[in-house]
Amino acid sequence: MKRITILINCNDKQGIIASVTTFIQQQSGNIVYIDQHVDREDSMFFMRLECEFSKEIFSVENFKQSFSTTIATNFEMNWHLYDSDKKPKMALFVSKYDHCLYDILSRYSSNEMEVEIPLIISNHPDLEPIANNFNIPYYYIKVTKETKEAAEDLQLKLLKEFEVDFIVLARYMQILSSKLIQDYTNKIINIHHSFLPAFPGAKPYHSAYKRGVKIIGATSHYVTEDLDEGPIIEQDITRVTHTNTIADFILKGKDLEKIVLSRAIKLHTKRKVMVYKNKTVVFI
Amino acid sequence: MKRITILINCNDKQGIIASVTTFIQQQSGNIVYIDQHVDREDSMFFMRLECEFSKEIFSVENFKQSFSTTIATNFEMNWHLYDSDKKPKMALFVSKYDHCLYDILSRYSSNEMEVEIPLIISNHPDLEPIANNFNIPYYYIKVTKETKEAAEDLQLKLLKEFEVDFIVLARYMQILSSKLIQDYTNKIINIHHSFLPAFPGAKPYHSAYKRGVKIIGATSHYVTEDLDEGPIIEQDITRVTHTNTIADFILKGKDLEKIVLSRAIKLHTKRKVMVYKNKTVVFI
Amino acid sequence: MKRITILINCNDKQGIIASVTTFIQQQSGNIVYIDQHVDREDSMFFMRLECEFSKEIFSVENFKQSFSTTIATNFEMNWHLYDSDKKPKMALFVSKYDHCLYDILSRYSSNEMEVEIPLIISNHPDLEPIANNFNIPYYYIKVTKETKEAAEDLQLKLLKEFEVDFIVLARYMQILSSKLIQDYTNKIINIHHSFLPAFPGAKPYHSAYKRGVKIIGATSHYVTEDLDEGPIIEQDITRVTHTNTIADFILKGKDLEKIVLSRAIKLHTKRKVMVYKNKTVVFI
Amino acid sequence: MKRITILINCNDKQGIIASVTTFIQQQSGNIVYIDQHVDREDSMFFMRLECEFSKEIFSVENFKQSFSTTIATNFEMNWHLYDSDKKPKMALFVSKYDHCLYDILSRYSSNEMEVEIPLIISNHPDLEPIANNFNIPYYYIKVTKETKEAAEDLQLKLLKEFEVDFIVLARYMQILSSKLIQDYTNKIINIHHSFLPAFPGAKPYHSAYKRGVKIIGATSHYVTEDLDEGPIIEQDITRVTHTNTIADFILKGKDLEKIVLSRAIKLHTKRKVMVYKNKTVVFI
Repeated sequence: MKRITILINCNDKQGIIASVTTFIQQQSGNIVYIDQHVDREDSMFFMRLECEFSKEIFSVENFKQSFSTTIATNFEMNWHLYDSDKKPKMALFVSKYDHCLYDILSRYSSNEMEVEIPLIISNHPDLEPIANNFNIPYYYIKVTKETKEAAEDLQLKLLKEFEVDFIVLARYMQILSSKLIQDYTNKIINIHHSFLPAFPGAKPYHSAYKRGVKIIGATSHYVTEDLDEGPIIEQDITRVTHTNTIADFILKGKDLEKIVLSRAIKLHTKRKVMVYKNKTVVFI
Repeated sequence: MKRITILINCNDKQGIIASVTTFIQQQSGNIVYIDQHVDREDSMFFMRLECEFSKEIFSVENFKQSFSTTIATNFEMNWHLYDSDKKPKMALFVSKYDHCLYDILSRYSSNEMEVEIPLIISNHPDLEPIANNFNIPYYYIKVTKETKEAAEDLQLKLLKEFEVDFIVLARYMQILSSKLIQDYTNKIINIHHSFLPAFPGAKPYHSAYKRGVKIIGATSHYVTEDLDEGPIIEQDITRVTHTNTIADFILKGKDLEKIVLSRAIKLHTKRKVMVYKNKTVVFI
Repeated sequence: MKRITILINCNDKQGIIASVTTFIQQQSGNIVYIDQHVDREDSMFFMRLECEFSKEIFSVENFKQSFSTTIATNFEMNWHLYDSDKKPKMALFVSKYDHCLYDILSRYSSNEMEVEIPLIISNHPDLEPIANNFNIPYYYIKVTKETKEAAEDLQLKLLKEFEVDFIVLARYMQILSSKLIQDYTNKIINIHHSFLPAFPGAKPYHSAYKRGVKIIGATSHYVTEDLDEGPIIEQDITRVTHTNTIADFILKGKDLEKIVLSRAIKLHTKRKVMVYKNKTVVFI
Repeated sequence: MKRITILINCNDKQGIIASVTTFIQQQSGNIVYIDQHVDREDSMFFMRLECEFSKEIFSVENFKQSFSTTIATNFEMNWHLYDSDKKPKMALFVSKYDHCLYDILSRYSSNEMEVEIPLIISNHPDLEPIANNFNIPYYYIKVTKETKEAAEDLQLKLLKEFEVDFIVLARYMQILSSKLIQDYTNKIINIHHSFLPAFPGAKPYHSAYKRGVKIIGATSHYVTEDLDEGPIIEQDITRVTHTNTIADFILKGKDLEKIVLSRAIKLHTKRKVMVYKNKTVVFI
């Protein structure tokens, strides 16, 4: 069977679900999952469908063409069709911390993640041995104030060359340029080490310690030009006490960061996340 | 607008969703929520729909008649239609513990729960003053080995008289008879003070303390004839340490019990729970 | 047996623990619990002791006198001795929300809380019937811009009259004056409906909804003159999804608020909280 | 400074804390952490101390000698002294699952764990490349019904040869012999993939799925001769829904298993766990 995932977003109107599901039935498709959401404030409709078709008779191109000129046009839809046979290509950006990198690569090596990882880019050489152990090309691109622009051009060139679909900042300690963010809108996933919107910016564990909070958190979000203000994909927290030092906060936080980031990556690769008004609809 | 909720359960086949959604559209209905689930092991299909219709032209009876003779017959569906204007009637069974009772009644008095509570039944007189404060009739029906059968007959008579739709055992410390359970299949909600299947039966906190667990829990489930083995609706847990005594376990557990039970009641009254193979599908 | 609780705070030096424990032994006391913490950054020492003494021979006054002139002087301690026979007196301040009030009063009525509640003060008359049900005097003191000062004078008068030890703001929707805060430093417990420092101030659930967070929280803290910036006693969170409306946030939050506030009250009444540098040491 | 950790366990009597802390002061030691617990049911006393001494004048042997012949004798203590300069030696036992192994080794390589790992033992050759990447000797010792005894002899020989202090079963899929368990009482840490005592034995995720639970868990415990019934060190849980398949349970569980096992290892290596009556006192 051929499996496809369709994401739909449009103004809410009567009859969308019936139209779409009937269309798929007419194409001899079987709906495996259907998820739907309506933002009542804005009358905005969201849908995610996973459908199966017989491989012999199904053509993705014909389906797209037909869907596009009928239903999608009628309801003025934003929509995407993803072929489940094609694994998305994910670039990893890292600096010196290795916990998220190890976590992602060990999942990758046990086929837990439905992605390809064509390359790792870093502004430091430190983690290259880990990349080597997992046989993934590692590009050390130094970033200084002077070289930042050239570095980003090189990064972009590599991303295009490897046909990267989305980027994961696995504790990459650099702020990306507007150009990169615009080229990969809602396709750059960051992990921030606080339960946003608390403690944005640098050194959140230090701020959390100073404020005397009883819970710390981690937040995975899409990167936008406003630092740490992009649409939140996933968050989680853990408890801390007065006995915990900043070093303890950092250690506990590492466990959160890697789990939360991996969850966000999985949601993204399964096409379960839709972005709207700087928020996410996450179908689970 | 008239709002109805439809629950559907049948063998999975191609075209169910399209058929149902098209039918609703043809009846000039608008689908507000759609949730669907397929148990792949058994090819079993589950769906929950909330739909709105114009009050002027919609007739629940006509809709039922029409749905029943067409789609429901074609797909051999088990299905139920609930009119959202009609609040379900909930009977509370209590003994001596008051924490769940207070929690439910305080939510009830602030209109947080979409139910009517026509009566409270208890095997002890202790909690009658609380019932009086909330102006709910309280029936003290003593249960001893000798009176058990007569007591249950009286309970059943009251339940019928007040047209009770479902029963909540808010820490009711008696085992119900088969008759009552059969009359209210999947309509009796219990709260058990452990994370089932750990520690079924009596004194779970004592057993948990003895075993030295680091988490304790509470489980809300539908009552079946197998004690504490009915379909689980909701569970939650909290952490304990070696410093906690059994008394602490009980106190911490009370907070879990009341929250978990109230969540289960809400899920039930919103018709979000479907039972299959002694498990629940819970649409959220 | 006579049980006392001692809280000690001073600069960290060698030998404090040995001196204190030896002193208690010399007084024929038995140490039931000992908890200790050192803030390494500031070399600040914290200790909490629960001790038992034979009622026949023990005199609180003699103990205080002796401890004060020896060890407490030597180590320049801030210290407090609490007699476990004396329940602290707690005043409740409420407005219109009843969930925290019901939660506290139902615990109170089942002797779960080791406090006396001599009075409830409110700026609205709405919750008086609840107070009546629990037989607690209810003082409705209207607060407007014009009457604010007079209202607070009256509040203070009542607090003194009833010899109130500490105040709980159970969703009291007014900002307290400096005078009241200064008179009850680290003795006013508030519940704020967000995981502070995220979303301080008014309407945090609305802000959380707008930001698209995946977790919401509640924070109980001591009130200081900086709004929502006092020392945090306890926090907890719950998950939300894109399907939750603001009304859902508020409902879910109510369950958090009442549990978190009750936990904070219990910690306070058991003398388990010490404040330092706008943070809390919470012995558990 | 020289830092030592002392664990003490004896019948509860008046004056223990004063005696011990005074003794340490007399030896010119500084108490950095003190934790104490009394099991009231059995009048059993537990204490953990971290103390610092000046390196020039302190002798571990003299301290031990002196403590042993005075206080330890007086109070009939079971006690252990650990030199914080000496990292405990941990043997890892694995089979085919790599998630716990990767998690432990990546923490190990970033110095997050205060242990040495002299060897990895496995009944399968599969994970040897991972061991090689981290430069740790890997011993593949096949275990069949026929070779089980010889295999264990070889295991024991290696454990002695490498002076192993404790063993971690990182999803090792074999039941250990009595001999090994007796040689390493309370020194073998297992991770079981359920919230024990629910679902002991094989295939807990399958049982959890069948039972329809809403939470799954993982439990780290010391191995005793009763399968999955040893003293629990740490547990944690995560939520599941009807949409999760057994495969999802397993994936979600892997994240729990690795985090819970690593937490248990850290608690053990920091000497924060004491065992009594098949339960643990865990000082945090």
